[in-house]
Amino acid sequence: MTDFDAVSPPDPDIADAARAQQAQLTKPPGSLGRLEALSVWVSSCQGVCPPRQFERARAVVFAGDHGVTAAGVSAYPAEVTAAMIANFDAGGAAINILAEAAGATVRVVDIAVDVEEPLTAAIGAHKIRRSSGNISIEDALPDDEVAAALDAGRRIADEEVDSGADILIVGDMGIGNTTPATTLIAALTDSEPVAAVGRGTGVDDAGWARKTAAIRDALFRSRGSAGDPLALLRVCGGADLAAMTGFCAQAAIRRTPLLLDGVVVTAAALVAEELAPGAKQWWQAGHRSTEPAHALALRRLDLEPIVDLQMRLGEGSGAAVALSVVRAAVATLSSMATFDEAGITSSPDKR
Amino acid sequence: MTDFDAVSPPDPDIADAARAQQAQLTKPPGSLGRLEALSVWVSSCQGVCPPRQFERARAVVFAGDHGVTAAGVSAYPAEVTAAMIANFDAGGAAINILAEAAGATVRVVDIAVDVEEPLTAAIGAHKIRRSSGNISIEDALPDDEVAAALDAGRRIADEEVDSGADILIVGDMGIGNTTPATTLIAALTDSEPVAAVGRGTGVDDAGWARKTAAIRDALFRSRGSAGDPLALLRVCGGADLAAMTGFCAQAAIRRTPLLLDGVVVTAAALVAEELAPGAKQWWQAGHRSTEPAHALALRRLDLEPIVDLQMRLGEGSGAAVALSVVRAAVATLSSMATFDEAGITSSPDKR
Repeated sequence: MTDFDAVSPPDPDIADAARAQQAQLTKPPGSLGRLEALSVWVSSCQGVCPPRQFERARAVVFAGDHGVTAAGVSAYPAEVTAAMIANFDAGGAAINILAEAAGATVRVVDIAVDVEEPLTAAIGAHKIRRSSGNISIEDALPDDEVAAALDAGRRIADEEVDSGADILIVGDMGIGNTTPATTLIAALTDSEPVAAVGRGTGVDDAGWARKTAAIRDALFRSRGSAGDPLALLRVCGGADLAAMTGFCAQAAIRRTPLLLDGVVVTAAALVAEELAPGAKQWWQAGHRSTEPAHALALRRLDLEPIVDLQMRLGEGSGAAVALSVVRAAVATLSSMATFDEAGITSSPDKR
Repeated sequence: MTDFDAVSPPDPDIADAARAQQAQLTKPPGSLGRLEALSVWVSSCQGVCPPRQFERARAVVFAGDHGVTAAGVSAYPAEVTAAMIANFDAGGAAINILAEAAGATVRVVDIAVDVEEPLTAAIGAHKIRRSSGNISIEDALPDDEVAAALDAGRRIADEEVDSGADILIVGDMGIGNTTPATTLIAALTDSEPVAAVGRGTGVDDAGWARKTAAIRDALFRSRGSAGDPLALLRVCGGADLAAMTGFCAQAAIRRTPLLLDGVVVTAAALVAEELAPGAKQWWQAGHRSTEPAHALALRRLDLEPIVDLQMRLGEGSGAAVALSVVRAAVATLSSMATFDEAGITSSPDKR
């Protein structure tokens, strides 16, 4: 199944009501800046004004390996992906700590980690394959697995929404995954590799040159597929990226707000917006990554990051930090006194 | 008393230990960006590694009126200051909501609100005077009141630290207070008024012109005082600004980390750094305000804001949002697994 249901927009009437309510709060109009826009967005996503504080914020980390690591594109060996799954499961990774600090829980899913046996049955319940192909020389995965991975992401979103998640964070884990992500973004934004390639987890100069060459080769292989998002996922994506694509699209279809993380997640979101137009209305960009391709993707999606902390970790870590800001925004609209309630009759328009 | 004790720096050895601990955590070195620097800063301020999560975060809002409102520099009438004190006390203002969201409590102090009777005895315990002079034509307050206000701020900081506050937020409330704040910053950074003047709570074009004229007049009155921070507080400051100055300096002297808010607080911090050199090592800039003078002051202090959300409210609201980010930073350093703990031996420097 690669057809997505239509995306309906967040409620525009509730957005109007939320803006009107913001104007009544005891502060100069507009003085809370981005917090005001975020509060209106949450209100319109929830279809209620004032908005409710999130009760079940959930981060889902999509893990997968990538054959292109054979081309020497990463500072880390591929085995680290599986080791990090165990770290997530034990609660010791950055996303565990940052999600807890922001009042969210974490789920990790093994979509394409290069191990035969997933760490646990739950983690492996939606597994598609071991790793994905080396996109510098071959397709990442066949068409039927692209469809299966999209569907896995869709089902994971359904599971989370059906379990009561009222805001979602999408994160990634996979050594080498910024290489297919950058390729997808370059292909969809028609960018030169050198304008898009970053250092990922911290590759050195020689590694950066190898990564750029691999992306150039993958882009060459993807020529002619630019208008076909599913073909792009097959040629230069990966099973994890396809699953994230399905997840981002389905969150929007299920009318659930979602915070994007960095370059890998945003590459998948870019594909999701192609497959399910309008989905981006349900998303906010959590943070600005230091990866150059991230800025290209955000510009195309017309999304402005909530925080810019020079983070470049992935896992959903930047989005988790942003969640605290979104919570603060919700709190202002739901809890601040109005001028009338405070007995202040001196707002500028009433003088 | 206008002499301040010497400021000792945060512990450099603990900072080294914190950096070494950050390098052991299960993520690529540097990938948490600003969070890493913030975690090291908190650790060195506390003198312990890993750092402790804050148990008593405290926001103090300094309120005062300003005679320069007679020159038509604000979008709001001066009476709003007193009304907002009641709103703070009732818990309905933005800082109440944002502090609660970030796990901080709020104290408001009436330093120079233009009312004879403070709202409560506690709020008025450190009151210096009713309002401050119209700095476009006269001094804000006499020298002895500058000294008394500095001392009030110092005593308030002592009270908070003695009560166990482990991180402080400093906020402001006062119709017209961006006018003396902008004047102080322009005087201390040798800037032209037009490069520094913003719209405060949202003054219109005519009001902006009146504000600029008032600041130009106040700067003319302050010529010759640029090298004398106490004289500047007298000529073009205010009792509330002097109290915030004492508070920012004393927090550093008492080795307590402090988050600055917007343009008014940062103007006071600029004066405090003159009076107590090195105090800025104990401060972080919570957010980037939209006020032009804020950027001038931050550049002089060499401080980079934690968040940039186009806020321009004051009250400590931007710093309160930033507190959540600082808490997240502390959590990473205190709670993430190390590579050894996670059994991962594949960090790049170990290959």
